[in-house]
Amino acid sequence: MKKVVTIGGGTGNFVLLSGLKHFDLDLSAIVSMADDGGSTGILRDELGVLPPGDVRQCLVALSDSSRLMRSLMNYRFENGGLQGHSFGNLLLSALEKTTGSFEKAVEEAGKILNIKGKVIPVTIHQVRLKMLLNNGKLLEGEREIYLSDEISKGFKSIYLEPFPKADQPPIDEIMNADLVIFGPGGLYTALIPNLLVEGIPKALRETKAKKVLVVNLMNKNGQTPNFKVSDYLRELQKYIGKEVFDFILVNNAPPPNDLIKRYAEEGDLVKNDLTKDVRIRQLDLLSSELKEVQKGDLLQRNLIRHDPKKLASAIKHILEEW
Amino acid sequence: MKKVVTIGGGTGNFVLLSGLKHFDLDLSAIVSMADDGGSTGILRDELGVLPPGDVRQCLVALSDSSRLMRSLMNYRFENGGLQGHSFGNLLLSALEKTTGSFEKAVEEAGKILNIKGKVIPVTIHQVRLKMLLNNGKLLEGEREIYLSDEISKGFKSIYLEPFPKADQPPIDEIMNADLVIFGPGGLYTALIPNLLVEGIPKALRETKAKKVLVVNLMNKNGQTPNFKVSDYLRELQKYIGKEVFDFILVNNAPPPNDLIKRYAEEGDLVKNDLTKDVRIRQLDLLSSELKEVQKGDLLQRNLIRHDPKKLASAIKHILEEW
Repeated sequence: MKKVVTIGGGTGNFVLLSGLKHFDLDLSAIVSMADDGGSTGILRDELGVLPPGDVRQCLVALSDSSRLMRSLMNYRFENGGLQGHSFGNLLLSALEKTTGSFEKAVEEAGKILNIKGKVIPVTIHQVRLKMLLNNGKLLEGEREIYLSDEISKGFKSIYLEPFPKADQPPIDEIMNADLVIFGPGGLYTALIPNLLVEGIPKALRETKAKKVLVVNLMNKNGQTPNFKVSDYLRELQKYIGKEVFDFILVNNAPPPNDLIKRYAEEGDLVKNDLTKDVRIRQLDLLSSELKEVQKGDLLQRNLIRHDPKKLASAIKHILEEW
Repeated sequence: MKKVVTIGGGTGNFVLLSGLKHFDLDLSAIVSMADDGGSTGILRDELGVLPPGDVRQCLVALSDSSRLMRSLMNYRFENGGLQGHSFGNLLLSALEKTTGSFEKAVEEAGKILNIKGKVIPVTIHQVRLKMLLNNGKLLEGEREIYLSDEISKGFKSIYLEPFPKADQPPIDEIMNADLVIFGPGGLYTALIPNLLVEGIPKALRETKAKKVLVVNLMNKNGQTPNFKVSDYLRELQKYIGKEVFDFILVNNAPPPNDLIKRYAEEGDLVKNDLTKDVRIRQLDLLSSELKEVQKGDLLQRNLIRHDPKKLASAIKHILEEW
């Protein structure tokens, strides 16, 4: 059975894992731990727990239990002191308190949800994502970075504070993988935060695993405007320290024009400027379903997004290539 | 397999069920739904859910899952907006919201906790327990009644508001039982509230099941001071409408003197004034363990309490008598 490791955070990861879980793979999801918005942010501040939001989404994506259990995990309380908290976040926080460790909490939640595979926090240290802009402004926290529209004007640095020392589990996963899948996900909020943890870039450089980059469908205004495939590749390689990707998965199905128009305020379509690159796999990866999805702790209408089945099939083909 | 139904609420029920679950019985716990204190009270007020507290305790008592799962259910958040909420209460409330029904929520929580037997809310209507004292004061809610020290001066009435119409499940349980066990538990807060639901007294009068009363160990000052076995029996029969008990289980092991002294402010030992009654079974039912127990949503040092194993063995003997 092929060992497949995904690296990401947020909705992109959810979509990818939801598709991959239907194949017979040894699956591990390495998850960004920089979330600090909404329910997750409140739990971090009030209870001092590690951020449960992205982990919860991965657990739900990999869950083989009933639809009810999955709805329960994403259920958000609507009133009073509990308002805005998702039940799954409370489960992970209560398990962290009861077991005394976030890793153990994730493992136990995985049992309760009967997940296929493993979910591995990229770090189990309490860290905050920060970004220093060229204009001198310091963005503190993933949520501030997520909401900023000034990043495209340039930033000096992005870092986790305090700098998290390496944990062995995510490194072992990468080193022992047959295939590592990076993305899709917000460049500065879901992808790069994984590369700011000690040991992760080195593991990506040294592992014998094949590496796939799943390129985002859409850019984000003020963050990655007019980014092309080569821009994503360049930005990621900056933090990895080397050209590592063996395959680059790019969607080639055009979304309906009216959707592109409705998205115009948010961002533009990512164009492929590397058509002749042998690593590129261009395919229809677009979802035709229109539905609400969870983006971090925010419920959003994410209409232009990857189709879990198409994405998983594309990965399957890559696995069969060698 | 003998069908055994317990009726009660709070700690008494927890102790009884914890013991009974180790025997090969078809077990159902009918649970009082009048709790409105602490975490349960807040959830009722803020979310409009049915009171989860007593049900949670029964689920934990009957759970066959890991010690961790049981600790998790009773884990209480310590800070912020979640402060004081037990995780199990949040689970039941989120399940009620997700499934749309409290009965379904209890059933699903039972699956998650792998319970032996069934937990049946005595009513699934939103009710408040009220008591009108002789001095004209109206006690509103189980918590106010629980904390009152004026009840022993006399009360005009105790009732649930609005008066809950009968639900079929608890009535069917009682009618189909081989044995019905009543108590132990707070007379006005855990036992009588079950008898204020339409159909329950009638079912107790008409069922062919043998009926056991487990008499409390201790009285409560201001509520049941100097109550003897005959007083408990008389009070309960008033609400049941008939002499129904076939067996009366009374502890005959004296608690250590220093414990009785420490309890003096709270209440006195229940004395047995029916020694010649053929229904009486006098036995050592006393726990020798000294530990903290959950009483409703309040953590209390309940040092004089029933031993789950001794109590369950006594019930087993009764079952073997006929």
